[in-house]
Amino acid sequence: MATLGLIEYADASPEVRAVYDDIMAMREIDWINNFWKALANDPATLKRTWADMKQIMAPGALDPLTKELIYVAVSVTNQCGYGIVSHTAWARKQGMTDDMFRELMAVVGMVNETNRLVAGYQVEIDPQFKV
Amino acid sequence: MATLGLIEYADASPEVRAVYDDIMAMREIDWINNFWKALANDPATLKRTWADMKQIMAPGALDPLTKELIYVAVSVTNQCGYGIVSHTAWARKQGMTDDMFRELMAVVGMVNETNRLVAGYQVEIDPQFKV
Amino acid sequence: MATLGLIEYADASPEVRAVYDDIMAMREIDWINNFWKALANDPATLKRTWADMKQIMAPGALDPLTKELIYVAVSVTNQCGYGIVSHTAWARKQGMTDDMFRELMAVVGMVNETNRLVAGYQVEIDPQFKV
Amino acid sequence: MATLGLIEYADASPEVRAVYDDIMAMREIDWINNFWKALANDPATLKRTWADMKQIMAPGALDPLTKELIYVAVSVTNQCGYGIVSHTAWARKQGMTDDMFRELMAVVGMVNETNRLVAGYQVEIDPQFKV
Amino acid sequence: MATLGLIEYADASPEVRAVYDDIMAMREIDWINNFWKALANDPATLKRTWADMKQIMAPGALDPLTKELIYVAVSVTNQCGYGIVSHTAWARKQGMTDDMFRELMAVVGMVNETNRLVAGYQVEIDPQFKV
Amino acid sequence: MATLGLIEYADASPEVRAVYDDIMAMREIDWINNFWKALANDPATLKRTWADMKQIMAPGALDPLTKELIYVAVSVTNQCGYGIVSHTAWARKQGMTDDMFRELMAVVGMVNETNRLVAGYQVEIDPQFKV
Repeated sequence: MATLGLIEYADASPEVRAVYDDIMAMREIDWINNFWKALANDPATLKRTWADMKQIMAPGALDPLTKELIYVAVSVTNQCGYGIVSHTAWARKQGMTDDMFRELMAVVGMVNETNRLVAGYQVEIDPQFKV
Repeated sequence: MATLGLIEYADASPEVRAVYDDIMAMREIDWINNFWKALANDPATLKRTWADMKQIMAPGALDPLTKELIYVAVSVTNQCGYGIVSHTAWARKQGMTDDMFRELMAVVGMVNETNRLVAGYQVEIDPQFKV
Repeated sequence: MATLGLIEYADASPEVRAVYDDIMAMREIDWINNFWKALANDPATLKRTWADMKQIMAPGALDPLTKELIYVAVSVTNQCGYGIVSHTAWARKQGMTDDMFRELMAVVGMVNETNRLVAGYQVEIDPQFKV
Repeated sequence: MATLGLIEYADASPEVRAVYDDIMAMREIDWINNFWKALANDPATLKRTWADMKQIMAPGALDPLTKELIYVAVSVTNQCGYGIVSHTAWARKQGMTDDMFRELMAVVGMVNETNRLVAGYQVEIDPQFKV
Repeated sequence: MATLGLIEYADASPEVRAVYDDIMAMREIDWINNFWKALANDPATLKRTWADMKQIMAPGALDPLTKELIYVAVSVTNQCGYGIVSHTAWARKQGMTDDMFRELMAVVGMVNETNRLVAGYQVEIDPQFKV
Repeated sequence: MATLGLIEYADASPEVRAVYDDIMAMREIDWINNFWKALANDPATLKRTWADMKQIMAPGALDPLTKELIYVAVSVTNQCGYGIVSHTAWARKQGMTDDMFRELMAVVGMVNETNRLVAGYQVEIDPQFKV
């Protein structure tokens, strides 16, 4: 029921297969999840999005686990079911324990609460923060 | 212009001062930011919110810096100016470098993009994720 | 700095003035707030939006104060500064006390939190609710 | 499982049927989609919403296809499954090709990304834009 | 499919059972809905969230029905299916009639519209509101 | 007050200047807006974001004006002040008239309303849409 359908490996062009191969190699898995199969209907977007993700999620000043936790946090805030499920899985693969997940949820919930308290009480930014 | 005004330390009840003292002790600062001064108009909410924040942001399976990064990520997603400014400051106090900030922004931006690609392409959750 | 500017009463067409007059009469005030002056750049939208608001906010199964509280709750959730400020004022005019405002904020904050806990924990709807 | 159920044509009041007839005539279809059948539980809202939609989506300075593309863009941003599915269908009926859909998704995704980069980097509005 | 599963009463620790018992007593029901069973995977969050909800949703300056209406309004704005279904049920238990529900929906829909008109037309806050 | 400051042309590295030059050439302007000056603190993100924007906003199946209208629609839905102001300006440069802007606002407002009516009434997707 994906809008333009899903492109399976067997039916993919060489250009799309190259991205699929890279995804499987990077993630050390032997299957492609539906997000990429849906994007493959637009090879330009598939290639760009994967290139961006590879660059952005690579180890850097932040480690891959921290990045996956942030991925889940934002997906939960946006209430994107697919993002939550898939990146909870990837986060676990990067080492997220159940205790980490519990604390992640607690933080995400609280920030969504305090962001609205700030708005409703019309809290102005303190001059001390404007450095 | 805060809806109910801001309660300064000098004007606060002993109950509110006790929270203010705890906040300053925990954060090792000698001032109270406007969020708490605004909430102090509702001492029950002030006490509850601070107690929750202390419990949730304490070191645990996730370290305080990681929690602050998540705080910023969610505030950016919600576009809450106050949360962004204040917790960018707290995150820096916990050790966030400029490089960490840059990577944090890149991740948050990308997730907000991919969450919508998922929605628009109507991507169904893969059975592999439903373990 | 409103995108298309603000249409003052003195400069308004008879059609727009009729709406302005009705707004002032309904709200028992002698001025027009900027929202309507901005919409007046599109008389069709001005007339439609005011007609909708009059119909929707009128006393019915819910009283006007309850409707204003809901207005504020949604505006806070969307973090719409203008909606928060203006409808906090209208809510007060309908009888909202400071204590009501405090409780309203507490509820709105909490729901924004629990909505995300539901998403993150992937809570399925109980069959009991599907009646 | 719609909250108040769905009102089928056969069970509808003359007032509701009149709206249904108009919807089918305008869209050149012989069925009513669930959105309207759900709203029919509140005839005032049904009539108002349909009247608004007819006025707003009519050809004007923007053509109906452009309006449908915007409808999809907003629904995707809000992650409203029903809005995405139904207006992707109406957009196709108005002439949206698969290529248009692909480009629409790319734009919507990117804006959701850049909107957060703006927030996180706390970008101030340039004086040049404040004309 | 809840991320960490659901904790049934029979399998719950005494600490979790105490919360479950309190929930059932307060709501005068003999079952626990999935939200709490999911949170029970993190007893600290379960206890904190229930304590907060009890305090916040208790009768005060606002009556319990009004609070439930606000709960539904925010959940609808966030498009949180679970929150909508469950609190529509609790609201009905508190006395929400179908007519109240209809008016609630009309208000919530309209505010989501006007919040965006305000943003798009860049409406500045009137000095009269800044008291 | 931008988090990491703004990088002016005179202070930019050759790598950043190359992007700035390309932006000015593409947009036929002789200044750089703050968004890019803020992103320039992270040259990798600057280059990636500009490359993406160039690719995505280029004429294709959708013309540049339509893409700018979509940009504004999403920014309004997200209530991103910077995105609204800047892309309203770019849209005008691409030919958006005031009448187009008025209709754009009307559509965006309405979709935000109907997306919530769908959620609140729990409208299920019609089988006819699941082709």
